[in-house]
Amino acid sequence: MESLISEIKLFTKERDWEKYHSPKNLAIGLNVEASELLEIFLWLSDEESKNLTEKKIQHVREEIGDVFIYLINLAEKLGLDPVECAKQKLERNKMKYPASIVRGSAKKYSEY
Amino acid sequence: MESLISEIKLFTKERDWEKYHSPKNLAIGLNVEASELLEIFLWLSDEESKNLTEKKIQHVREEIGDVFIYLINLAEKLGLDPVECAKQKLERNKMKYPASIVRGSAKKYSEY
Amino acid sequence: MESLISEIKLFTKERDWEKYHSPKNLAIGLNVEASELLEIFLWLSDEESKNLTEKKIQHVREEIGDVFIYLINLAEKLGLDPVECAKQKLERNKMKYPASIVRGSAKKYSEY
Amino acid sequence: MESLISEIKLFTKERDWEKYHSPKNLAIGLNVEASELLEIFLWLSDEESKNLTEKKIQHVREEIGDVFIYLINLAEKLGLDPVECAKQKLERNKMKYPASIVRGSAKKYSEY
Repeated sequence: MESLISEIKLFTKERDWEKYHSPKNLAIGLNVEASELLEIFLWLSDEESKNLTEKKIQHVREEIGDVFIYLINLAEKLGLDPVECAKQKLERNKMKYPASIVRGSAKKYSEY
Repeated sequence: MESLISEIKLFTKERDWEKYHSPKNLAIGLNVEASELLEIFLWLSDEESKNLTEKKIQHVREEIGDVFIYLINLAEKLGLDPVECAKQKLERNKMKYPASIVRGSAKKYSEY
Repeated sequence: MESLISEIKLFTKERDWEKYHSPKNLAIGLNVEASELLEIFLWLSDEESKNLTEKKIQHVREEIGDVFIYLINLAEKLGLDPVECAKQKLERNKMKYPASIVRGSAKKYSEY
Repeated sequence: MESLISEIKLFTKERDWEKYHSPKNLAIGLNVEASELLEIFLWLSDEESKNLTEKKIQHVREEIGDVFIYLINLAEKLGLDPVECAKQKLERNKMKYPASIVRGSAKKYSEY
């Protein structure tokens, strides 16, 4: 993870692209890539989405890579650590959705 | 990162939510969270997006956490490692956008 | 449709919000609202999405309204007519996906 | 508008694509197209987004067309009229953001 972050920063610096990387633009880029990832699943059923062809899996790999690169770029720009952000959010989610109350309940789940 | 992944899997398992977590649904959830992150920047200028209030930074932290949790859930479901995906994508990007050609060029950058 | 466009323009003008309405910001707003619309369907099956509760239908109504308002705002700002844009795109789609070739084919459909 | 809706329904029917058009899938498609529209503006400044090249305007035209086609497909599927949805939402917005209070206020605007 640390070497990935270093490589991403170097990649941007070598291309002199920091000037385009406002947090706002990076958040837009993140959405564009997340949407390209979603497009792969557009006409698939839930079941089909669990059994992707090798071609689609490769496509998913690339789009997950793009989303993660933007997420790291955005977090870095704002001085945040995505792993820490996720851990803190998970703690909040544990309190918000106690396992004993929401377990296996589609109704609960869809009404959040 | 490894402990984060374990915690996320445990969180889902304890709530019996695996059944809702088709790759398709997780990709939708990722987009919904990426969009909530983007909304924070909606009416801000590029400059303002670099100088967020503490309240907005806290909000960004939570949404980055949500995006990352969905990304990990989706990758795990498909047996993929997001760090590996990002590293491989970065290698492809290096070949696609050679530093010597694209350096600092807004025109090139916006024409990809 | 024409009275709707007039009303939307008046709404923005009365609030002196034109200054925030760059095409870029309006495109972001459109995405944020499209994502709120999508969120309603997040954990529903395809079948459930066809039989929404009255509460969810009302929510869908509001989000379709929001998406459409942003779409009209964006088109107006750029001097475009969304109905004309859709008609032209439909003509292109007719050529791109001839009915005689793609009819009822999931494979074709998902490989576009 | 009415002839557009008829043409869109005929287009779908001639291709036997109704079976893929669950509201959930149409909401995903709407998001994918809204994101392709947003991508056009990704690296542009607010000012640049107001002065698009003819090539980009043509691209915007197509993506606005795609977004609108999905929006109409989704509304039709649920028996809703997008113009009515927008008018009702506009009435709600008038009450939510009274012109006399929010006029020209960036602060208010960004704190909604």
